[in-house]
Amino acid sequence: MIDRIDHIAIAVEHLDSAIDTWTNLLGCDRSAVTIHEVPSEKVRAAFIAVGQTKIELLEPLGDDGPIAKFLSKNGEGMHHIALATDDAAAEAERAAALGITPLGEPSTGAGGKKIVFLHPRQTNRVLVEFVEPKPDHSFIQ
Amino acid sequence: MIDRIDHIAIAVEHLDSAIDTWTNLLGCDRSAVTIHEVPSEKVRAAFIAVGQTKIELLEPLGDDGPIAKFLSKNGEGMHHIALATDDAAAEAERAAALGITPLGEPSTGAGGKKIVFLHPRQTNRVLVEFVEPKPDHSFIQ
Repeated sequence: MIDRIDHIAIAVEHLDSAIDTWTNLLGCDRSAVTIHEVPSEKVRAAFIAVGQTKIELLEPLGDDGPIAKFLSKNGEGMHHIALATDDAAAEAERAAALGITPLGEPSTGAGGKKIVFLHPRQTNRVLVEFVEPKPDHSFIQ
Repeated sequence: MIDRIDHIAIAVEHLDSAIDTWTNLLGCDRSAVTIHEVPSEKVRAAFIAVGQTKIELLEPLGDDGPIAKFLSKNGEGMHHIALATDDAAAEAERAAALGITPLGEPSTGAGGKKIVFLHPRQTNRVLVEFVEPKPDHSFIQ
């Protein structure tokens, strides 16, 4: 089940200046920003929470990952939308049954969350990600 | 103050099939969709709620409005992000003071809400809208 948009991702050339831009625009403090390196995706990602949803700023690590290629082809701009679900694999199967093709098997994204992308051809050229936040066990003593 | 993302807008060629795609993908009923015509912007807009945020699908009315031009130049895809605020004019002034230029004065968008767009040059080529939902007076007897 999908009950909220987890994040909206933006590809940027320079993460530090983009963090300044977006924290200023949103009127929030830089201490509210969390930064993750995801070597498997060759990106450094900054998350800024806005209510239920986050703005994710993506800077390439190196020049041959998917964000480096996106920037080289398109320049900066919106990159994908991530939908929160409690079961990314089940949602990917459900999407496939609708004719919306998953781009491979679920893998591990920023913060160790399970993620899977869908082919944008069947979603009005919008790249959609399912993301499965890790269960919160902090209440277990 | 900005406390949530109001909507993410997607430019589409055919609204009806896009509504099918996104309601199916999100697993929600077509009865949850609201449709507005905004002649001033030359668009027909469908909103689908996902938690605090909506997916807005934008189909051009005619061939000379901003969405028609976007589609002609870029094809379908993500068009803008709208940030909810209780004062769009004040946020536009605040953005201008940060060097992020508003695109004109606040105007009336879908559903009669006050809106203002910002120039994407200063926001990593992301078109950002401030939207001021109308106050809810339904609790007043």
